[in-house]
Amino acid sequence: MANETTTTQPLVGIIMGSQSDLRVMNAASEILETLGVPYELTIVSAHRTPHRMFEYAENARKRGLKVIIAGAGGAAHLPGMVASLTTLPVIGVPVKSSNSIDGWDSVLSILQMPGGIPVATVALDGALNAGILAAEIVSTFNAAVADKLDKYKISLKDKVMRSVEELKRGDRDLD
Amino acid sequence: MANETTTTQPLVGIIMGSQSDLRVMNAASEILETLGVPYELTIVSAHRTPHRMFEYAENARKRGLKVIIAGAGGAAHLPGMVASLTTLPVIGVPVKSSNSIDGWDSVLSILQMPGGIPVATVALDGALNAGILAAEIVSTFNAAVADKLDKYKISLKDKVMRSVEELKRGDRDLD
Amino acid sequence: MANETTTTQPLVGIIMGSQSDLRVMNAASEILETLGVPYELTIVSAHRTPHRMFEYAENARKRGLKVIIAGAGGAAHLPGMVASLTTLPVIGVPVKSSNSIDGWDSVLSILQMPGGIPVATVALDGALNAGILAAEIVSTFNAAVADKLDKYKISLKDKVMRSVEELKRGDRDLD
Amino acid sequence: MANETTTTQPLVGIIMGSQSDLRVMNAASEILETLGVPYELTIVSAHRTPHRMFEYAENARKRGLKVIIAGAGGAAHLPGMVASLTTLPVIGVPVKSSNSIDGWDSVLSILQMPGGIPVATVALDGALNAGILAAEIVSTFNAAVADKLDKYKISLKDKVMRSVEELKRGDRDLD
Amino acid sequence: MANETTTTQPLVGIIMGSQSDLRVMNAASEILETLGVPYELTIVSAHRTPHRMFEYAENARKRGLKVIIAGAGGAAHLPGMVASLTTLPVIGVPVKSSNSIDGWDSVLSILQMPGGIPVATVALDGALNAGILAAEIVSTFNAAVADKLDKYKISLKDKVMRSVEELKRGDRDLD
Amino acid sequence: MANETTTTQPLVGIIMGSQSDLRVMNAASEILETLGVPYELTIVSAHRTPHRMFEYAENARKRGLKVIIAGAGGAAHLPGMVASLTTLPVIGVPVKSSNSIDGWDSVLSILQMPGGIPVATVALDGALNAGILAAEIVSTFNAAVADKLDKYKISLKDKVMRSVEELKRGDRDLD
Amino acid sequence: MANETTTTQPLVGIIMGSQSDLRVMNAASEILETLGVPYELTIVSAHRTPHRMFEYAENARKRGLKVIIAGAGGAAHLPGMVASLTTLPVIGVPVKSSNSIDGWDSVLSILQMPGGIPVATVALDGALNAGILAAEIVSTFNAAVADKLDKYKISLKDKVMRSVEELKRGDRDLD
Amino acid sequence: MANETTTTQPLVGIIMGSQSDLRVMNAASEILETLGVPYELTIVSAHRTPHRMFEYAENARKRGLKVIIAGAGGAAHLPGMVASLTTLPVIGVPVKSSNSIDGWDSVLSILQMPGGIPVATVALDGALNAGILAAEIVSTFNAAVADKLDKYKISLKDKVMRSVEELKRGDRDLD
Repeated sequence: MANETTTTQPLVGIIMGSQSDLRVMNAASEILETLGVPYELTIVSAHRTPHRMFEYAENARKRGLKVIIAGAGGAAHLPGMVASLTTLPVIGVPVKSSNSIDGWDSVLSILQMPGGIPVATVALDGALNAGILAAEIVSTFNAAVADKLDKYKISLKDKVMRSVEELKRGDRDLD
Repeated sequence: MANETTTTQPLVGIIMGSQSDLRVMNAASEILETLGVPYELTIVSAHRTPHRMFEYAENARKRGLKVIIAGAGGAAHLPGMVASLTTLPVIGVPVKSSNSIDGWDSVLSILQMPGGIPVATVALDGALNAGILAAEIVSTFNAAVADKLDKYKISLKDKVMRSVEELKRGDRDLD
Repeated sequence: MANETTTTQPLVGIIMGSQSDLRVMNAASEILETLGVPYELTIVSAHRTPHRMFEYAENARKRGLKVIIAGAGGAAHLPGMVASLTTLPVIGVPVKSSNSIDGWDSVLSILQMPGGIPVATVALDGALNAGILAAEIVSTFNAAVADKLDKYKISLKDKVMRSVEELKRGDRDLD
Repeated sequence: MANETTTTQPLVGIIMGSQSDLRVMNAASEILETLGVPYELTIVSAHRTPHRMFEYAENARKRGLKVIIAGAGGAAHLPGMVASLTTLPVIGVPVKSSNSIDGWDSVLSILQMPGGIPVATVALDGALNAGILAAEIVSTFNAAVADKLDKYKISLKDKVMRSVEELKRGDRDLD
Repeated sequence: MANETTTTQPLVGIIMGSQSDLRVMNAASEILETLGVPYELTIVSAHRTPHRMFEYAENARKRGLKVIIAGAGGAAHLPGMVASLTTLPVIGVPVKSSNSIDGWDSVLSILQMPGGIPVATVALDGALNAGILAAEIVSTFNAAVADKLDKYKISLKDKVMRSVEELKRGDRDLD
Repeated sequence: MANETTTTQPLVGIIMGSQSDLRVMNAASEILETLGVPYELTIVSAHRTPHRMFEYAENARKRGLKVIIAGAGGAAHLPGMVASLTTLPVIGVPVKSSNSIDGWDSVLSILQMPGGIPVATVALDGALNAGILAAEIVSTFNAAVADKLDKYKISLKDKVMRSVEELKRGDRDLD
Repeated sequence: MANETTTTQPLVGIIMGSQSDLRVMNAASEILETLGVPYELTIVSAHRTPHRMFEYAENARKRGLKVIIAGAGGAAHLPGMVASLTTLPVIGVPVKSSNSIDGWDSVLSILQMPGGIPVATVALDGALNAGILAAEIVSTFNAAVADKLDKYKISLKDKVMRSVEELKRGDRDLD
Repeated sequence: MANETTTTQPLVGIIMGSQSDLRVMNAASEILETLGVPYELTIVSAHRTPHRMFEYAENARKRGLKVIIAGAGGAAHLPGMVASLTTLPVIGVPVKSSNSIDGWDSVLSILQMPGGIPVATVALDGALNAGILAAEIVSTFNAAVADKLDKYKISLKDKVMRSVEELKRGDRDLD
């Protein structure tokens, strides 16, 4: 379990606007554990704790973080505002919140950042991919993580090939 | 001309994310002049000047402002972030910026605020209505502005009735 | 319980197109009670009781109301029509009705008002924010409500910080 | 030219929210002239002349009108509000106004009427079809108009067949 | 019960693309019974029984029908194709079928007819309004139906006023 | 049951991005069996088994396949990538996957292919139609399949006519 | 030039709803000439010449056609209606007509066909791809066309490789 | 000018589907030059040169690249397919191509990647932000680039503050 206080220096900071986003965002922390990338995870709300957000974003690089993953729903300002306060790469996860208009609000308010302030946006509720992308960024200077990513890619292929074999044996049940 | 330094105490603060938004946002300042509501106008970028935004929003009420009008395009975070930092009513103007996806991005990232942090959103490029709405808010405690709003409403009706008369006279030119 | 007959002079009028909108609109009345803003609540249908709507809107200011909150679904004409008949600020709540096309109809028919007749639109089903926005408008001339809004904002932050603490303690249950 | 004062009793009332809609709405009056259906045409704004709208809609049937065509853009409330005030068939023309979000706003705010208050909606900027539909309604009790509609339908077919002939002759110029 | 074989001459023909549309389209027949307008109801599929559709549409006027209501889902071609084969007014009901993309497909394929061939489109799943609109068309030459429509409009208002009274009595249960 | 190893030479290859797509794609194989067209069915993932996809697509024609049906969800690249690697007709089935944005992602990423590389796209989750379309293509050189398609078309009409009869008998139950 | 009267037996029939669609649809005929596939081209309007459409579709197979390409805009019923009247493969080209809502209407009214009646839909204004797809279908029984398709695919690659070379030489002008 | 043959080892590979994307993608190369990050730029088409794409993606890491920026329009498969063939971070730029449906096709076909294969998506035509994001990734292991990013962020702020000063001086010209 990796929370705010981890023994290894976290390289990835996972933040989200509300506790209810954990349902989606846990996939990011789980894959980072699988890929051996130390991380921290906490709640930072752009709209309810703006000063906390400022502090978190402005101190992230000096605290040793390499990437920030920020998930939020609705008019999702957390990823973009964090990106305005750091030069670390920021990955945005649009969360489909309960009163979202089919997810379009969080997707567009994270993706359509103005020139100068990028957010690396992943798919709606795509926290798994946010975690992998963070690991890919870490892998640019960490060969061990690059190796783990290679193994993960092979495992994806193997899973497909197992379904191929099942189908060949005449087993067409849905997984 | 009413800029940051006006002699009368401004009641409405008009801010926008970039100088290019002036094209749209000027309509707010013009109608406020018409309606006799003192205002100030400046540029505050959520993403490029986040500290300036914090300072502007947190000092607004104590500086005597009653309403803030905030215009922005694309992933438009200015209105919502200002609303997170003040309890004054904040009016958001979605601006259709040059690389906008038909305006949907600015509309949704201003409108779909989470519970607790409202933004009073007007139509796409609706700075005129933002100005009128600000005056309506001022009119709740200022009878002179209420009177001017009544007169403005009558002028809208009169303009329609003049077109009605022109049509009756057989003049069907487009205006 | 604050209905049409309240002992204190109501400052906010909450109206909605149909009894079925109460499910959504109750959040506006509840937060106004929390924030100490007297209100009234009733049903006014633009399409089924157009004369009642006219009367309600035209008498609102002289009856002492300061703000009107109007909720409606589908082709939602109530907020805009009320705005055409008063110079009070009108807050529109797009309600996602049962046969709505994902809420787009109510959002667009409330938001996209023509120049001259503003409606302060909040998020889909955003009645809570409509109530807070109404209180913010009242707070421009009522310091007690401004204080309550400050306290409410702090309570939002406190709730986030409690989740932060829970996460630190290793408790990652969803709320 | 058929304006408010025509010698023949108008059967169709064409109204629109603003003079700028004439550009689109003229197609309705032209086809009604072609089909021999007397009509009147004027400007009635739901938001700027709400009382005029009430009076127009409530008197329409007793003045002898059989159908009302109402065109409006943006948050287009005119067709639906007129329909709430009369039991005549009301045809709505969504006009793509200058600040429209690609026409979706006028389409949805005219089309998505609640149960009980229908508006017969035609295509975006579809004033020609609104005029034909009005004539079709008149044709249910007027054989002369039914005949003219038959001839019109044949003329549509003949125009296609002429293009077929042109193509056969090897002429593939665009029309 | 009014099916294909009714004793009174049907004035309205209700058709739909598939038996599964009955769930939605029954609302049209029920309101026509309430309003005293004789009708017939059957299934005509544009894509599976195109010849039947041709025959139905081309014979409708001579069989005494005054209006056709056509409901269909997905790529909904029935209303538009019927309109191409008759000069009677055709009312289109976009049905939200099981694999519809949120109803957009049926709405757009019924609404956006080319110039010359109108379809009077009502809201998604709006069969009730289709029935009322058909009655309004019949009312242009039938005073008894006009009277029933007046009474129906009053009943809509009365239902709202009853909810108003319930709210006044402090009963805020949802209906 | 026809899997990768069928005794008859398969003419249609049905592939899909993941085992979970079987739920939708089975409709293609079932109709091909009905229409007497030999096929094979397997899983080929563009993103998890890209080399397998290359091999499958490049060998398809020489292996005797005449048509490829490819189903995928989300950012669905399988149909288009297969089309880039073969000159056989490729039919794309947009699958509405679990985190899809209402199906728009798979529809657009299959449909909007650049000039030079067509994909024959069918409706969202339209695997049944993909199978029929494949049979129609086979029918261009195989009269037996053409006959079966004729019979299938008649069966569609017969099913409608049976509902017509049921309705005539007064049975308005939903199917 | 290949019009209705060509000396070689046409294998592909290109039809479109109006002469104005030629601007888009010519790309289909041009690529078919390049690929050596005989075709015919004419205008068939679903809404203005429904009988002509019936006759065209029902006679297509017996006249020797193997594929039909049908282009139409707005509420585009031509491809689907033709598909309901033949068992030949029908390719639908959504044309972005002048009053289209950004092309969504023609895309959805062609793509979202009900089960049983497929239309092979290509991209908006994708007539070039419709022609190639028709040739791919012909190639399933015609080796000469398969060869031409191979050569065409190579030419696409060669064009890309020429731009690669230009960029290498430092020439970054836009094409 | 940095093309395929640069003397410094390129760290970022910029690829795009067609020469016409250079108009948009040049912004990525320009900002990388400003930020001192060596890069290469070439054309790789997923659909027209699939083997070249495979080779490029599979060799990228061993050739020393740290990040790949891939831009494409319409059904944009290049970024996702490259991501399926490498474990380097891949940044996707949705390009609004000429026949795009308002950019939605390229946005969704790049953004909505399935779990396991992330693409870091930036705004529509957001090549500038793609370049900055690539530099941010490089900055995680390269302090010189981190410094340049800090300076760039300050320059963005300075540009805003200059507009603020211009406005104060009464100069409200649009930039």
